[in-house]
Amino acid sequence: MIEVSIIGATGYTGAELLRLLSNHKEVEVKYITSRKEEGKHVFKVHPHLKGIKKYENLYFTNDLDKIDADLIFTATPHGASMEIVPDFIERGIKVIDLSGDYRFEDISLYEKYYKIKHKGLVDAKIAYGLPELHRKEIKEAQLVANPGCFPTGCILAVAPLVKEKIIEERIIFDSKTGVSGAGINPTETTHFPNVNENINPYKITTHRHTPEIEKELKKLGNVKVSFTPHLAPITRGILTTAHTFLVENLDREGIIKIYEKFYKDEIFIRIFSEEIPKLTWVRGTNFCDIGGFEIDEHNRLVIISAIDNLVKGASGQAIQNMNIMFGFDEKEGLFNVGLHP
Amino acid sequence: MIEVSIIGATGYTGAELLRLLSNHKEVEVKYITSRKEEGKHVFKVHPHLKGIKKYENLYFTNDLDKIDADLIFTATPHGASMEIVPDFIERGIKVIDLSGDYRFEDISLYEKYYKIKHKGLVDAKIAYGLPELHRKEIKEAQLVANPGCFPTGCILAVAPLVKEKIIEERIIFDSKTGVSGAGINPTETTHFPNVNENINPYKITTHRHTPEIEKELKKLGNVKVSFTPHLAPITRGILTTAHTFLVENLDREGIIKIYEKFYKDEIFIRIFSEEIPKLTWVRGTNFCDIGGFEIDEHNRLVIISAIDNLVKGASGQAIQNMNIMFGFDEKEGLFNVGLHP
Amino acid sequence: MIEVSIIGATGYTGAELLRLLSNHKEVEVKYITSRKEEGKHVFKVHPHLKGIKKYENLYFTNDLDKIDADLIFTATPHGASMEIVPDFIERGIKVIDLSGDYRFEDISLYEKYYKIKHKGLVDAKIAYGLPELHRKEIKEAQLVANPGCFPTGCILAVAPLVKEKIIEERIIFDSKTGVSGAGINPTETTHFPNVNENINPYKITTHRHTPEIEKELKKLGNVKVSFTPHLAPITRGILTTAHTFLVENLDREGIIKIYEKFYKDEIFIRIFSEEIPKLTWVRGTNFCDIGGFEIDEHNRLVIISAIDNLVKGASGQAIQNMNIMFGFDEKEGLFNVGLHP
Amino acid sequence: MIEVSIIGATGYTGAELLRLLSNHKEVEVKYITSRKEEGKHVFKVHPHLKGIKKYENLYFTNDLDKIDADLIFTATPHGASMEIVPDFIERGIKVIDLSGDYRFEDISLYEKYYKIKHKGLVDAKIAYGLPELHRKEIKEAQLVANPGCFPTGCILAVAPLVKEKIIEERIIFDSKTGVSGAGINPTETTHFPNVNENINPYKITTHRHTPEIEKELKKLGNVKVSFTPHLAPITRGILTTAHTFLVENLDREGIIKIYEKFYKDEIFIRIFSEEIPKLTWVRGTNFCDIGGFEIDEHNRLVIISAIDNLVKGASGQAIQNMNIMFGFDEKEGLFNVGLHP
Repeated sequence: MIEVSIIGATGYTGAELLRLLSNHKEVEVKYITSRKEEGKHVFKVHPHLKGIKKYENLYFTNDLDKIDADLIFTATPHGASMEIVPDFIERGIKVIDLSGDYRFEDISLYEKYYKIKHKGLVDAKIAYGLPELHRKEIKEAQLVANPGCFPTGCILAVAPLVKEKIIEERIIFDSKTGVSGAGINPTETTHFPNVNENINPYKITTHRHTPEIEKELKKLGNVKVSFTPHLAPITRGILTTAHTFLVENLDREGIIKIYEKFYKDEIFIRIFSEEIPKLTWVRGTNFCDIGGFEIDEHNRLVIISAIDNLVKGASGQAIQNMNIMFGFDEKEGLFNVGLHP
Repeated sequence: MIEVSIIGATGYTGAELLRLLSNHKEVEVKYITSRKEEGKHVFKVHPHLKGIKKYENLYFTNDLDKIDADLIFTATPHGASMEIVPDFIERGIKVIDLSGDYRFEDISLYEKYYKIKHKGLVDAKIAYGLPELHRKEIKEAQLVANPGCFPTGCILAVAPLVKEKIIEERIIFDSKTGVSGAGINPTETTHFPNVNENINPYKITTHRHTPEIEKELKKLGNVKVSFTPHLAPITRGILTTAHTFLVENLDREGIIKIYEKFYKDEIFIRIFSEEIPKLTWVRGTNFCDIGGFEIDEHNRLVIISAIDNLVKGASGQAIQNMNIMFGFDEKEGLFNVGLHP
Repeated sequence: MIEVSIIGATGYTGAELLRLLSNHKEVEVKYITSRKEEGKHVFKVHPHLKGIKKYENLYFTNDLDKIDADLIFTATPHGASMEIVPDFIERGIKVIDLSGDYRFEDISLYEKYYKIKHKGLVDAKIAYGLPELHRKEIKEAQLVANPGCFPTGCILAVAPLVKEKIIEERIIFDSKTGVSGAGINPTETTHFPNVNENINPYKITTHRHTPEIEKELKKLGNVKVSFTPHLAPITRGILTTAHTFLVENLDREGIIKIYEKFYKDEIFIRIFSEEIPKLTWVRGTNFCDIGGFEIDEHNRLVIISAIDNLVKGASGQAIQNMNIMFGFDEKEGLFNVGLHP
Repeated sequence: MIEVSIIGATGYTGAELLRLLSNHKEVEVKYITSRKEEGKHVFKVHPHLKGIKKYENLYFTNDLDKIDADLIFTATPHGASMEIVPDFIERGIKVIDLSGDYRFEDISLYEKYYKIKHKGLVDAKIAYGLPELHRKEIKEAQLVANPGCFPTGCILAVAPLVKEKIIEERIIFDSKTGVSGAGINPTETTHFPNVNENINPYKITTHRHTPEIEKELKKLGNVKVSFTPHLAPITRGILTTAHTFLVENLDREGIIKIYEKFYKDEIFIRIFSEEIPKLTWVRGTNFCDIGGFEIDEHNRLVIISAIDNLVKGASGQAIQNMNIMFGFDEKEGLFNVGLHP
């Protein structure tokens, strides 16, 4: 049994950590923090958690100095994590950071896309927390940078192709995301009448997840990543349509075999050779479902991936990373069935 | 560990039983039946279940004669259950029937509203499977008639008021339901362009859940039940607005106390004295959230209840009933956090 | 040809006035005002209007002193209208006010529900702008108080019953509204993940449209109005389910006849004797569709009304009022077909 | 004033023709046909049309022999049009066919993708009814093949680029469509719980609109078209994200200028140089809004187009074609404001 604390537990990813940890046998939640909700009971801020025995004495605090734990999740905004993580690291605490602050080995890339001056990486082992590609580093890391939601779905969709070098460099990711990805705070972007009956492309060529996807895929092979996200009138889920171009004459079955081999030990990757993945199949779960595998007359190979942006795209993956770091069963707290329909 | 079988496991309630039982420690699923999908693997028909070890060897059968189990769930249409349940009962098998066939002690009421000639009740103890009102009978029953989705939300919303005789006889239930309540088969009613951007009242005064609500509430006190359902552009959930009229001069706090007392040992009833219940808070769970408790200038008292129609309104309640019948922990397989947002 | 100006033309009702007036043959739009968008072209703030020749030279101003016109629409928040309307009235300009400020003959009722000190009614003929009940007063008024969205759908749903005195005093309105009714500014209430997959009751017994409905119906007969609104995951439309109780032994056909007679000359009221009204049938139009007319075993008579909250519930009705005030064809600019599906 | 008849007026495109023609000053609707609804009044089948004076005596017929008119719209399924169109053509009637039957000059391409044996083209001038590219041919044609919904949005999105030869041959269209595109008949695909909270890619590389897009663009330049449609939980609209690759070093402004020049006389094309087009801006209208024009680091140029699939993607474009064929004002019956929000 370990103790964990969550910095920034009022938002969607914080709440989702609490939802998933409520079933986790090896974890107690010690502290949860919030600037705005200090002193409030967790059920007051997150009424859907009401009834969870484990949380009956859990109140929000804002006193970061007293926070300790075996592991701290920082569900803080970009730029805020780097203000607090170094101290935790120094105190010997393991950290899983859900922000973008530690995702880039090359902080100049971060600074270019996040338009924030970086305070520098910490003096500890950092891993990029995508278990399917970096399980060994995660196991040994003190700090895990939890991947972005889009990168998770995009990278997993094409990693086998890039590694096998059977596609052209140029990859186009056309992603459709649910609105929970925009966070818990209301904005014009999340205003119901603006979202409903619309599909809204945004940051068409400038989304900061683009370099994250590209730098990770480059570890596997040569790529030039183009990425465009769209906000869809759904709450949870990211469906990614990856448009790639085959350089070799491979058929559908051959490609499916490559995926099945690449992911053969991965319990959270489901390969669908017949059905097309649906977001409701992964809803609430840590699965990344992959399907499509169709080739058109111009050698375009289309891969479809589906994740729940708040689970495999954020809090679920963070818990998967925790399970790896502490040697727990990797699916503890996570192995659920998608809430379909 | 018991063995259960599910008759009619291709629809939404069958799939939901499989979803919930996948986490149930005391249950193995032995047979699942289907006329259309005979021979198919369960993952082929319900791809969202893929990866569940427990179901790796589970195929649909259509041979009802060979079905046995400690408990059988009949997730069959109204009228079909009474064709098969008597045989199971005779063979000494316990049955939880999710259809309307055994919900009425007075079969003439059934015949009037379902327009089906009833074959007669079985020679065994039958209980109406609403644990909050009939836990003792359920424990002793061989056949449990699982309540309708609307009745579950409506009855639980007002039972304390009826029992305490503090409201007038006349109760108006205005319910809003998700489309999954209409089943897995596409119809004009469930056609997306007909549902989307609409709120569709239907069977405005003639829904067959009306007599079910009324006959149950009459066990607690005098009532005249008026009920109108509306189809809303959501997938899961029933929100019921119960309009009642106080006969006594009670204030909001007094009423909340009555509810808290009435439901004090009920783990699946959550009373919200401040927040108004939200469907996403109960989504995927067996909770019935109750709130509102507001009184207007004309002595109208409004109670709001929220359930997931496929869980507390169907399969979750069926599992709760099973847990009671077999002496398992009542929340086994069921105690989850609502998938909010 | 008359000139109109719109005070507060950045919100949904302002934009809807512009949408409808774009087709109006008798009207030029002279000024549109905004505090925030001063100086901007109308197409910049409302891109969906792009291409309308009539508006090619229309810019937002914030100089209220220079505003003149034959008619001014004040699409201003409650409390703001009474600051500016008296001056326009004094200058002899006709005004249609879309706020609640002039809807109550008895301003103490306004003050009780709006929690605003009223500055007093103006010295001019004021009409409550529901043409089906007050066409004559509207024709003669200098100031028309455009009705609230809920009151429009509720009052029209039961006016014939109240007038004919065939129902009990007690009427329960259970209304379901689209999110555009909450306005153009993002709030927690309109945040997509809070609305989607939910039906959210609000101001369950305290909505300020309640006294507006009641005081209007009282002009026709004795009533005690109970009203509960719900926010539904749709953008436009209000569906109202009116639960009434018959005092006389009338059948469905008799009731339909009463409605057909009461509304026989009303071009924007459509009585559906067979189909149940759908919000998409009235979407974008000035219709109020009325149907239901079903009676249950406890003498409850249910009436369903459907309107587009931004048209018949706001801007469309304002234009209908303008047409009446200036002697134009009452349907000019308004007679459209609902955008179904 | 001309007379038109509609073959197959029960579906969405037929209903949409009736909606738009209700405002058309130059057109009377003479006959509407249906196999299933023969003898019924148009308001019975399409209740949202109720109140339209023009249609008060309009009943469905099934007697195709008696149909005459100056123009016939065939809103019939693929394969059905070619059974009836030749006879109309022979009788000298002008025809606008909304099916795919006459869209291909090369019928072998049709046969390959539609898997139907073609009966042969008619002996009359046929035009592909995309006015922005073929206005002159449309004017002279006796038979106009109305374009598919996806082709309309895709072709218009990139035509200027292809003509100017500033992009590579390879173009990827990733389209997101509303469910009304799937027609009025309920199927598993359109079942609300399957659509809601999902984005469903389908016919990922095999949609029959692909060759239609390609053969049209090939008239302007060399292209290799890749196309993937997705079903989104919205009713109306197609948003297309066109991923192209620049061969020349052009900047955003230069590209926008090319578009503004190419479409300078087109009243139904709106170029948005700043805002990103939204489906609700074109909802109910014949506009094709075009925007995006962003270039990423790998020379990818993204163009976004938005249409209402039932208007510019079907019935609106058909009426635009009719206006051209008969010399009416091209925007008669069509120039509306999008129903936003």
